[in-house]
Amino acid sequence: MRKSEVKILVIHGPNLQLLGTRQPGVYGKQSLAAINRLLRQDAARTGARLTIVQSNHEGEIVDAIGKAKGAYQAIVINPAAYTHTSVAIRDAIEACGVPAIEVHLSNIYAREKFRQTSLIAPVCHGQVSGFGVLSYRLGLQAAIHAVKT
Amino acid sequence: MRKSEVKILVIHGPNLQLLGTRQPGVYGKQSLAAINRLLRQDAARTGARLTIVQSNHEGEIVDAIGKAKGAYQAIVINPAAYTHTSVAIRDAIEACGVPAIEVHLSNIYAREKFRQTSLIAPVCHGQVSGFGVLSYRLGLQAAIHAVKT
Amino acid sequence: MRKSEVKILVIHGPNLQLLGTRQPGVYGKQSLAAINRLLRQDAARTGARLTIVQSNHEGEIVDAIGKAKGAYQAIVINPAAYTHTSVAIRDAIEACGVPAIEVHLSNIYAREKFRQTSLIAPVCHGQVSGFGVLSYRLGLQAAIHAVKT
Amino acid sequence: MRKSEVKILVIHGPNLQLLGTRQPGVYGKQSLAAINRLLRQDAARTGARLTIVQSNHEGEIVDAIGKAKGAYQAIVINPAAYTHTSVAIRDAIEACGVPAIEVHLSNIYAREKFRQTSLIAPVCHGQVSGFGVLSYRLGLQAAIHAVKT
Amino acid sequence: MRKSEVKILVIHGPNLQLLGTRQPGVYGKQSLAAINRLLRQDAARTGARLTIVQSNHEGEIVDAIGKAKGAYQAIVINPAAYTHTSVAIRDAIEACGVPAIEVHLSNIYAREKFRQTSLIAPVCHGQVSGFGVLSYRLGLQAAIHAVKT
Amino acid sequence: MRKSEVKILVIHGPNLQLLGTRQPGVYGKQSLAAINRLLRQDAARTGARLTIVQSNHEGEIVDAIGKAKGAYQAIVINPAAYTHTSVAIRDAIEACGVPAIEVHLSNIYAREKFRQTSLIAPVCHGQVSGFGVLSYRLGLQAAIHAVKT
Amino acid sequence: MRKSEVKILVIHGPNLQLLGTRQPGVYGKQSLAAINRLLRQDAARTGARLTIVQSNHEGEIVDAIGKAKGAYQAIVINPAAYTHTSVAIRDAIEACGVPAIEVHLSNIYAREKFRQTSLIAPVCHGQVSGFGVLSYRLGLQAAIHAVKT
Amino acid sequence: MRKSEVKILVIHGPNLQLLGTRQPGVYGKQSLAAINRLLRQDAARTGARLTIVQSNHEGEIVDAIGKAKGAYQAIVINPAAYTHTSVAIRDAIEACGVPAIEVHLSNIYAREKFRQTSLIAPVCHGQVSGFGVLSYRLGLQAAIHAVKT
Amino acid sequence: MRKSEVKILVIHGPNLQLLGTRQPGVYGKQSLAAINRLLRQDAARTGARLTIVQSNHEGEIVDAIGKAKGAYQAIVINPAAYTHTSVAIRDAIEACGVPAIEVHLSNIYAREKFRQTSLIAPVCHGQVSGFGVLSYRLGLQAAIHAVKT
Amino acid sequence: MRKSEVKILVIHGPNLQLLGTRQPGVYGKQSLAAINRLLRQDAARTGARLTIVQSNHEGEIVDAIGKAKGAYQAIVINPAAYTHTSVAIRDAIEACGVPAIEVHLSNIYAREKFRQTSLIAPVCHGQVSGFGVLSYRLGLQAAIHAVKT
Amino acid sequence: MRKSEVKILVIHGPNLQLLGTRQPGVYGKQSLAAINRLLRQDAARTGARLTIVQSNHEGEIVDAIGKAKGAYQAIVINPAAYTHTSVAIRDAIEACGVPAIEVHLSNIYAREKFRQTSLIAPVCHGQVSGFGVLSYRLGLQAAIHAVKT
Amino acid sequence: MRKSEVKILVIHGPNLQLLGTRQPGVYGKQSLAAINRLLRQDAARTGARLTIVQSNHEGEIVDAIGKAKGAYQAIVINPAAYTHTSVAIRDAIEACGVPAIEVHLSNIYAREKFRQTSLIAPVCHGQVSGFGVLSYRLGLQAAIHAVKT
Repeated sequence: MRKSEVKILVIHGPNLQLLGTRQPGVYGKQSLAAINRLLRQDAARTGARLTIVQSNHEGEIVDAIGKAKGAYQAIVINPAAYTHTSVAIRDAIEACGVPAIEVHLSNIYAREKFRQTSLIAPVCHGQVSGFGVLSYRLGLQAAIHAVKT
Repeated sequence: MRKSEVKILVIHGPNLQLLGTRQPGVYGKQSLAAINRLLRQDAARTGARLTIVQSNHEGEIVDAIGKAKGAYQAIVINPAAYTHTSVAIRDAIEACGVPAIEVHLSNIYAREKFRQTSLIAPVCHGQVSGFGVLSYRLGLQAAIHAVKT
Repeated sequence: MRKSEVKILVIHGPNLQLLGTRQPGVYGKQSLAAINRLLRQDAARTGARLTIVQSNHEGEIVDAIGKAKGAYQAIVINPAAYTHTSVAIRDAIEACGVPAIEVHLSNIYAREKFRQTSLIAPVCHGQVSGFGVLSYRLGLQAAIHAVKT
Repeated sequence: MRKSEVKILVIHGPNLQLLGTRQPGVYGKQSLAAINRLLRQDAARTGARLTIVQSNHEGEIVDAIGKAKGAYQAIVINPAAYTHTSVAIRDAIEACGVPAIEVHLSNIYAREKFRQTSLIAPVCHGQVSGFGVLSYRLGLQAAIHAVKT
Repeated sequence: MRKSEVKILVIHGPNLQLLGTRQPGVYGKQSLAAINRLLRQDAARTGARLTIVQSNHEGEIVDAIGKAKGAYQAIVINPAAYTHTSVAIRDAIEACGVPAIEVHLSNIYAREKFRQTSLIAPVCHGQVSGFGVLSYRLGLQAAIHAVKT
Repeated sequence: MRKSEVKILVIHGPNLQLLGTRQPGVYGKQSLAAINRLLRQDAARTGARLTIVQSNHEGEIVDAIGKAKGAYQAIVINPAAYTHTSVAIRDAIEACGVPAIEVHLSNIYAREKFRQTSLIAPVCHGQVSGFGVLSYRLGLQAAIHAVKT
Repeated sequence: MRKSEVKILVIHGPNLQLLGTRQPGVYGKQSLAAINRLLRQDAARTGARLTIVQSNHEGEIVDAIGKAKGAYQAIVINPAAYTHTSVAIRDAIEACGVPAIEVHLSNIYAREKFRQTSLIAPVCHGQVSGFGVLSYRLGLQAAIHAVKT
Repeated sequence: MRKSEVKILVIHGPNLQLLGTRQPGVYGKQSLAAINRLLRQDAARTGARLTIVQSNHEGEIVDAIGKAKGAYQAIVINPAAYTHTSVAIRDAIEACGVPAIEVHLSNIYAREKFRQTSLIAPVCHGQVSGFGVLSYRLGLQAAIHAVKT
Repeated sequence: MRKSEVKILVIHGPNLQLLGTRQPGVYGKQSLAAINRLLRQDAARTGARLTIVQSNHEGEIVDAIGKAKGAYQAIVINPAAYTHTSVAIRDAIEACGVPAIEVHLSNIYAREKFRQTSLIAPVCHGQVSGFGVLSYRLGLQAAIHAVKT
Repeated sequence: MRKSEVKILVIHGPNLQLLGTRQPGVYGKQSLAAINRLLRQDAARTGARLTIVQSNHEGEIVDAIGKAKGAYQAIVINPAAYTHTSVAIRDAIEACGVPAIEVHLSNIYAREKFRQTSLIAPVCHGQVSGFGVLSYRLGLQAAIHAVKT
Repeated sequence: MRKSEVKILVIHGPNLQLLGTRQPGVYGKQSLAAINRLLRQDAARTGARLTIVQSNHEGEIVDAIGKAKGAYQAIVINPAAYTHTSVAIRDAIEACGVPAIEVHLSNIYAREKFRQTSLIAPVCHGQVSGFGVLSYRLGLQAAIHAVKT
Repeated sequence: MRKSEVKILVIHGPNLQLLGTRQPGVYGKQSLAAINRLLRQDAARTGARLTIVQSNHEGEIVDAIGKAKGAYQAIVINPAAYTHTSVAIRDAIEACGVPAIEVHLSNIYAREKFRQTSLIAPVCHGQVSGFGVLSYRLGLQAAIHAVKT
């Protein structure tokens, strides 16, 4: 690893381990592994290196964010279901001070009412929602951009 | 295990490990072990086999449901406190595609206002609430019935 | 009629006379008569005897419940549309003191918002919702169980 | 009947036929017949004559009020459960133009939230709530007073 | 009756039997009989035949709609007070499958807040509100049009 | 004063000193002095003795109620504007333990929305609303009745 | 133009220029021009003359209504999206004093929640909703009727 | 213009003509002209051609979208203030059938409550919010991606 | 005092005795005495005479307004905290019949949500808010204008 | 024009062109031209010069405010109907940085509920409401005062 | 009094003069005098001196706080009923600038819904709730701590 | 360990491991280790012994509380983010029957709206909020006091 490399933590929230088989009409047909490959390729192109975690446990996500300070320069997070219920993840992001980007595969504003409120967004730099895998890729660009400027 | 056996996953949510000693006026005097014995007897009678898990961790419950596809033909779940707060468990049930039955020992509609809304029910086949241990037993019947028809 | 027989009042609320032809995708294809036959068979097996009434009139249902004390040991009721609007039926159940079980053919928690609140449930022993005809049968079991214990 | 007599219609709403046995802690121990006797005595003392009806049917109560114009000079009504749900009874009172007094045995403002709103009160002369049988007797006085002034 | 005749069921809800004398400033001066004569004349002109019922009983209206299938090709209904409180009538219309038109004499949107929500409208073809007797006549046209196209 | 006399505290809340001139269409044409005379006559007839206070100060009303225990056997209170805003008066009534009757000259349920909620009613024996001066007189009867039974 | 002619202003709100191609399942297959032809024919038959405007601009609609006084005897308006958001159009109708009829092609009460509230309806004579082109034609009849009576 | 070029309509909503001088802490220091230059460069690189409009008039934006069908393959829109109030723009997007991407300079979820609801988002492909000028550039990528796949 | 003089009651609500030292960023640096001097000068110029009271006691303010009829031709009131909580002051203004003008030093619509609702404004002639001491001076002009016209 | 002159932009919102004929009971009998004459006289007296615009178009008002910076030292605006619906005008005022004063002819707090919330007030210096034409004149004073201090 | 002494104002709100006899199950059996003795002992131990006031009058409490600046270094206040209704006390605390500690005998979060919101807490240093007399003693420690650090 | 020692379980919720570096303006500059040292010293002084756990995992906290019965005589818990979202922790406290004290470093009532509701408080003995580390120390005193009395 070169010193000048941008290090980014990518967090996949609950149930995303099922991607590809889970409601493909809503979430697309690509597996999480395929998405991760794409993201690593994108990162490589811009001299960034990704650490990628997936967890169904709110506490593990809070743990990971709590250790991000100093280790990563930005976070790309798809909080999935925890978007709508986790004050703990919100507090972790606010507490760690590392800029975070929230991404969603589906357009959460076109779904059930309870999915239209994000507890996480107010403490993030911004949010990308609705473009499938492209949401992650755009979010990654935004993260790298945030680090570089 | 015979091939033709119906395999059902039974999930007990948070604090149910305390059954028998926890507010017996609300939740009854039987321990969780006693309830599980009863359920296994019921299952045996109809040629079904149960895997039973109890967890206080939302993430572990999401993990278990995430692995249910292919392994179980139905789920009987008492989400307990997570009934009212867990979008992650809801999404897990919807994502895994295995028919689920929600059960409650107490009549949640006769209790505090916040206990009267279930985030889980809309993605289940149905709900049984208020009959103590019998709620589980009726839920198990409904699960077996769902598999057989 | 033998003295030791359990006598149970089964009440079908408004529009249930149309079962079989009414939105079969939601309510199933069996006619009310067929359901009643099934219930009587189930009852016979456990030594219970059913009186079954169907009415579109809130007042008639209130009348029937008001006379249940002493005549029946339990009530199984599908209040249908009155689930969401009838304080009178709620008060009748509370007033008569006979244990009541609420049942629903469809999963009311997966339907329109106004169907997700039951005025009746808080005064019942419990509720079974979403299993089609099986909801009645499980409700009948719960009623008999309530009488016997 | 003398011409100068004040004729008053007294309406008892749903479940009041059960008075005396129905939750005596809330509604008192007197039967409806006993209450009616008391009211007729009170009326006789002031030269008023009562017609008393009890019904569990919203439609019958609407029918009765619809015929009150010209036949009665005032109405004393305990709408019971229909207090909180019946626009039809409200409209009937407003339409018939006969002054109406709303009475309640229990203090509805000390009970469940949904019992604290009356659809009927806004179209009545006034309301008496919480004094048991005395609520009716005070309501009757108010009705006679309304006729005489 | 000729076979080709369009048969339409006209339902007048609670308190409409008082039309002409009931708050004429709001509901107009014509009696229900006069309105019915007008409607029959309109129907005759277009080869339609009307069956007209008025009831103050929610249950009777539900009964009538429940028998409409096969007997009538359309329903014109002024649910009056039940517009705002009856899920049972809503379900009856949805269950019977006969196209229904909702009409109101007064402009319900210029009145009390609770009159501005119709439980019935979402299951009707459309709604005509505010034109006095003309609301019925336009509703009848819409019903005949719905049958013919 | 004879020992056996029933002693009742009558409290008139804010702005009632203006009665007779204040919006007579809403509150009637009688002055507070006239009302008090009437009430004293009524009381005298039944062997009760009244202490009457009027205050525009929430604190003075709380003071008066706080001293009621032992000194009075019942309270008749028209809290006027404080009906809708004073938790302090509510707490005073609950704390002093003397049975209280709430009265209102106007029908508060036919007025502005904010006047339709009483913070006081839930801790009173009952409420009389809408009959002008008669509300006080009926309230006084209820108070005496509460003491005697 | 003959003096005795009834002059009516017909206003089509935003996006109605797209009729025929815009979501035909919701709004029908007829173009706006075709609808206008039908309306002119209907008008001609009853001796009325129409001025028809379509605009996507709230301000232009307000301008047009502001000039209606004296120039037109009635207005038929489909405010489309502005139904739910424009106080300015509401005020214009109220200010100009010309009787207005609100019409909608689709049944707005069977659609998204935000479409179920009309800011315009309370200041109109009445509303016709849900009959496709027929809504306009019935609205036109109502307008002519309002002028003639 | 070559036939194969992707044609994209970029719409800037109200007050965006003031960019650069308007609250630079919230909206950044770049003028709208500078942003447009950047976007045209990005577009040129991927063989897309932009038509860019800015308007403070809801009606003009509705007009522009109404003509987009056939002329453009995608829309990138920053509805600014109209995000929260315009059903007309929402309907225009839904009616024209051209895929639209919603972008915001600031993170609307970290601002006033009324800015946290978008009427537009539910009918767009997705939304990018909070990255300043980068929001537009990512939105443009998403638009081009939507056209190509 | 000359007969023709306009007599105006100026009321300062709770905590205004602290002006000058209380949060000067919100309420300005002038003491209440200084404000009163300014107001008396303004009044003198137009032949009006002021009686000025400050009180932290809701009851005293109600008392003062209750005596205003006949003694003053207008009231200028800054109800301060009681703006948001006092039905008693509202009723006093409505009861006394003297035209009242509500003034606020700060712009209450730019502050906490609970400060944005005034119980007093609906019964006043008008309201001036946000201009510091000038709010009082404009309010005084409005009061004098109201008296003279 | 002298350099030292205070230049003020006066904006009349939708439907105000109808003043004098529009509901004179609510809005007064003076025409807009008469109001403007009065305002110009007031301005002349204090060495201010007014530019006055009236528009029914939200976009035109946004345009006008967008150009105010540098051209005017203060804005007096009666947003009329747009008070309650226009985030665009709010943003324009906030963006242009010119101090703005909101005025209303009628007391908006004594009218319909939806008129009691102003989207504009939080970004203005202050608000004057309820004094008819005097509201404008006081608002003008406040504007000149804001410029001079 | 020594100069270095910490002077603390202790305020007991409405109805607390009844302590010991008032609902002892909720508020404990100690009289206010006994509590005050305990507090003075605690204060003496840490070199603090208490001035203690009890009042049922919101205005008196506002008066007392208004004079606290310079006289006291901290305030310990149990606002009792005024916790939930008094903006005036809130403003007084904010205006006087003396650090305040809110205490409650009972756990207000385990009681009626309206007792679960404190208007006072947001302007205090902190809150202690639910420990009976100990709440005061802990609050006193916190006050002394606040002064010393 | 001596038998008579009071054993207390101290639970630190999510993100509290970051104390000292996390938003020191809100949460103070002391590390969690430093706080724990202070608490152990306080405990030692009163003969109590502490077991201290910190976890970001809701499930681990539920586990810990579930084992508290018999092992500890009291619990001091700062649920942090889970205060506002965890029914599971609430149920654990209620189920285990060990008295619990809720503490917060910051004054949660002076922060975002969603932080002002505690799901935990209603099942605790009491709550201490807003005093930084002192909140814990006061909470510990309250816990020891609860055990001793």
